[in-house]
Order: sequence, then C-alpha cells, then structure tokens
Amino acid sequence: MQEWNLKETADWLKACEDAYILIHQNPDGDCIGAGYALAEMLHQMGKRAAVLCNEPIPNRYRFMLPGEEKAPDFAPRCVISVDVADSKLLGDELRARFGNAVDLCMDHHISNVPYAAARYLDGQAAATCEILCELAKLLPITVTEQMAVCLYTGMATDTGCFQYDNTRPATFRAAADLKEQFPEVRYGQINRKMFAVKSFGRLRLEQLLIDRLEQHLDGKCTLICMTQEVLKKFQVDEAELDGIAGFPLQVDGTEVGITMKEKEPGKFRISMRSADEVNVSAICQSLGGGGHFKASGCSLSGTEAEVKEILLKAVAEGMPM
Amino acid sequence: MQEWNLKETADWLKACEDAYILIHQNPDGDCIGAGYALAEMLHQMGKRAAVLCNEPIPNRYRFMLPGEEKAPDFAPRCVISVDVADSKLLGDELRARFGNAVDLCMDHHISNVPYAAARYLDGQAAATCEILCELAKLLPITVTEQMAVCLYTGMATDTGCFQYDNTRPATFRAAADLKEQFPEVRYGQINRKMFAVKSFGRLRLEQLLIDRLEQHLDGKCTLICMTQEVLKKFQVDEAELDGIAGFPLQVDGTEVGITMKEKEPGKFRISMRSADEVNVSAICQSLGGGGHFKASGCSLSGTEAEVKEILLKAVAEGMPM
Repeated sequence: MQEWNLKETADWLKACEDAYILIHQNPDGDCIGAGYALAEMLHQMGKRAAVLCNEPIPNRYRFMLPGEEKAPDFAPRCVISVDVADSKLLGDELRARFGNAVDLCMDHHISNVPYAAARYLDGQAAATCEILCELAKLLPITVTEQMAVCLYTGMATDTGCFQYDNTRPATFRAAADLKEQFPEVRYGQINRKMFAVKSFGRLRLEQLLIDRLEQHLDGKCTLICMTQEVLKKFQVDEAELDGIAGFPLQVDGTEVGITMKEKEPGKFRISMRSADEVNVSAICQSLGGGGHFKASGCSLSGTEAEVKEILLKAVAEGMPM
Repeated sequence: MQEWNLKETADWLKACEDAYILIHQNPDGDCIGAGYALAEMLHQMGKRAAVLCNEPIPNRYRFMLPGEEKAPDFAPRCVISVDVADSKLLGDELRARFGNAVDLCMDHHISNVPYAAARYLDGQAAATCEILCELAKLLPITVTEQMAVCLYTGMATDTGCFQYDNTRPATFRAAADLKEQFPEVRYGQINRKMFAVKSFGRLRLEQLLIDRLEQHLDGKCTLICMTQEVLKKFQVDEAELDGIAGFPLQVDGTEVGITMKEKEPGKFRISMRSADEVNVSAICQSLGGGGHFKASGCSLSGTEAEVKEILLKAVAEGMPM
C-alpha cells in the first residue's frame, strides 16, 4: 500500500474518472458529509461520481444530500473510500463487491487498517471532513453551500460540536472559514438537530435510565444494568439503546460509566466509558474485550450480581490511586 | 458617554491604576472569565486589580480563579465593568457602590444600556471573552495558561460550546489560537464540566419534567407546567428550576417551548423559547412581557387551564403560516 500526502491525493483525484465513493455502515455525519462533499467536488471537475453505502442514509442526515439517493448509472473506473477505518466496516455487501478493489482510502482514524492501494491518513484530524476542507484548496473547484453543509456537519458531529479533545486548532479554523464563506448556512439549526433534539421515545428511555443509575466506588463508577426482564417490562426498543453508553458519564463525579445489556439470559454486553483519565481499554482487555482509551467494551456471562462484581473489581483495580 | 474602539480601550487600560473590575450578578462563565482574565492582564502590567461580584462565584466556575476569592486590599482609582449590559445587573450592593462610577464598560450585549463614562461594545462578538482575546494583542502582556482557561471557558459557555448562531468566524479563530498556544489546557474536561455533567437532583428533576411535557399545536409547541401542587408534591428545589426554560425545546419538532411556573396560587411566570424562526419576544410582548427574539417571558394570572389557553392562542397567532 502506498501512503500519499495530500498533494498526491489531490493529483490522483484530478486524474480519476467515474468514481464510486464508499462510506461505512451505520453511516454518521462525518462519512456522509465527506462522501457527498467529495462527490460534489468530483462533479465540479466534470467527473461522474456516486456515494455508496451498505444501507440507506438515516433520515436525520438526509438534509446533507443534494437530492434523493439513487444507485449510480455508470460502472466505476475507480473506487474511493472515505472515513472507513477497516474494510469490514463497509458492511457485508459493499465489502464483498469492493473490499479488495479500493484505489484510495481517505481517513482520520489512527486505527485505520490498510486495505486500499493507496491511503491518505491524517490521524490527528478530528474528522475526515476536516481533511476534505484542506483537500478542497488543492483542487480546481469552488466550495459550494452544499459542500459547506456537509463539511461543517461532519466536523461538528465527530467532535460533539467541538466539545471533545479531538478538536484541534485546524478544526476550529476550518469551521471558521466555512462560516465566513457561507454565512447563510443555518449552522445553529444543524447543531440543534444533531445535538439538542430528542424523540419522545428517547426521552421516555432516559427516564427509565435515570431510575436505573447505580453509583459505586464512592461515586466514581456509575452503572446502568438493562436486564432482559427490564427490557421486556418497559418494552424498550433495542435500536433506541444505541448511544446510551455515554449516559452514566453525565452523572457528576463519574470517572467510569458502565452500561450492561443482557443480550440473552446470563450473557451481558458491556460498554465502558471514561470521563478522562481512566484507561477503560486496559480494563476491558483484562476482561477479554478492548477498544479505545475512553470507550471500550467486553462480554461477560453470569448473573447480574456476578457480572457487576467482576466489573467493579476490574474498574477499582484499573483506577489510578 | 464616549464610545471607544479597541485601541483607545487598550491605551486607557495601559494608563489606569488600582482597578476594580465589576461583573454581573448570577455570574456566568463569560463574565467570570472576562473579569479574571482582565485582572491577570492588569497584574502583568504591574497594576493592582480585583474582581468584584455581588455574590460569591459558584462552585462550578471556581476552577477559573487563580486562588481564593478575596476582598480587595486597596481602594479603587478606576472602575471597569465587563459583560454587564445594564447597571441594574450589577446587583443591589455593587450598583449602590459603583453604579454611577464606572469608568469603562466592556461588553458584547447588543442591548447594552449606557451607564459608564466610556464604553467598548462589540455586539457581534459571541462573548466578552472573545473581545478580550483581541484586546490582549494590543496590551504589553503575554497570555498565560490561566487566562486561556478563562477566555476559552467564557467563549464556550456563551455559545453552548460553539453551538449557537452567535458563534462567528472570529470566535472559532480565537478558540483555535488558544488551543494552539496552550495545548496543555484540559479543554475536554472543561467542556464536560460545563455541558455534560448533571447532578442527581437535576436528573431526577428531568424525569419529572419529561412526565409533564405536553405537546400542542401539532407538536410545534411543547409546554411544561409546574404548579404549586407539583412543586410541593415532588419537593422540587426552586433553584434547580433555573435553566429548565430550554427543556421543552429539545423535543423533536418543537418550534416554541414554554415553561409555566406557578409562583403563588393563580400567578404564573412564563418562559418562552424559540427553536429558530418564531419571534417569541413579539408573542410575549402581546401578553405584557418581552425579551429577546428566541428567549422571552411574561407573567399571567388565572387557572392553569386559562393560562394555557391564553398562551396557546398567542403562540398560534405568532407562528408564521
């Protein structure tokens, strides 16, 4: 695999034709933004380009699209992936079709596993959209309002609206440039949609979650356990449980937040989140799982009480003195 | 009153001595950040300076202070206010002592009511701390880590972490500069503390609020009514009700969010918030109140049902077709 710099990447894009742009499954603001912004850049250079995803773009992100999603009406002469850290993340169908045929992978995940012929990786960028803001300056194109919506949304969603530590000076500056060039974009509305608004179902679920918050280890560890019994009793939609892993962290004083979800009787899927200093990747590794420093997971079997005991012991040992 | 530009303001600050810096009552991240950053700038220039507030700095903001709060051990030879839009907002005690003695008012509130001998007002700045980032460049000082914490926190809190539309390119750029100069500041931790963390009491209150959410006008208006009966029954701490005015807005589809709080039997204090396009200032004015385009209030008397009917009629009339 070749590692390219941004200039080499831009030069290759100027020469490419008929591009399929692949984004990852469970698409988020950053891969959708990067995919559709890049497609628009290629269109402006007179090329055919289409974004492909293993599943439909979720409603909440459809405002980023220039129109209806449609299948490409041309065969690819090149394949580009954006924000896809591993070919597994293309999803089964796209992976089967293109997993070994990606010409260029553009990504910001430091954990990126090589699978393309060439790669542009900036592991310090907050978002792939941040990379595309730089890339745009090297292409013979003019950034459009639709691109600005895509690029801003990608950077905002991957940083929790510039809240997380991955936000770097260049992220702020790229957002400043977009806001200066396109003051008419409704950034506040985008942020509200992405960060503030909740469905009634989600609010009802949060009520239940608050009832189930448990504080352990002098309040440093906050845990939520969702057993099969609770899931059934309150008719919780499994899809709505996505994204609750961070919920316990919002309790004041929490250093490690844990959610336990009983997938089948006696088998728990654990998500662990660190507020700051505790390495939950190491803790989850000690329990047969793994992940990132601040966001990891593992699977454990036993009764609710047994699994909690194992977890709390491991967290206590993994906390700095 | 003289209107100064930033250079005139800087020149005056270079010449001033023994400054009292006044901030507003119910102090927030921006006035505390601006006050303590300015004090530190004056200290660096070899001057005496002290920050005065009508009440103690709340615990959640004490990380911004260089040490314990203490009464100044010198008499003022000049008085500066920062982020104080009206001398009324100094609070009774400070207003009585200094309301007519302010030499320089530095502010970003477009609604600023003149009360000082001279004023530097930038109504487009997202925060007074954003103004101080510019000011620092005109003073013979070096920005310190403590100033960076103050200035960043002020900008972040006044913009909802760069979420609101008051965030302008210059806000992003000022944040970028601070992050570049002081990568060691724990911005992510500050953001977590300011935006993510909640007390258990607040979470319990949110459970109750979710139960009391009512949707009206095809879901475009979401309302919460806290009667005396509810407040008593659930032993709600009145102080915890501060800041719930925005709660109804988080419900998907809401354009106007209303909170009704029964202050005494049959007398309601109303807060009204707009998600985007509806001018709630005009609606509240029609009911004898007022405020800003997106955040206003009024007081109404009657039974819960009567007050709701008045409110919903006014909101329906105030919504664009």
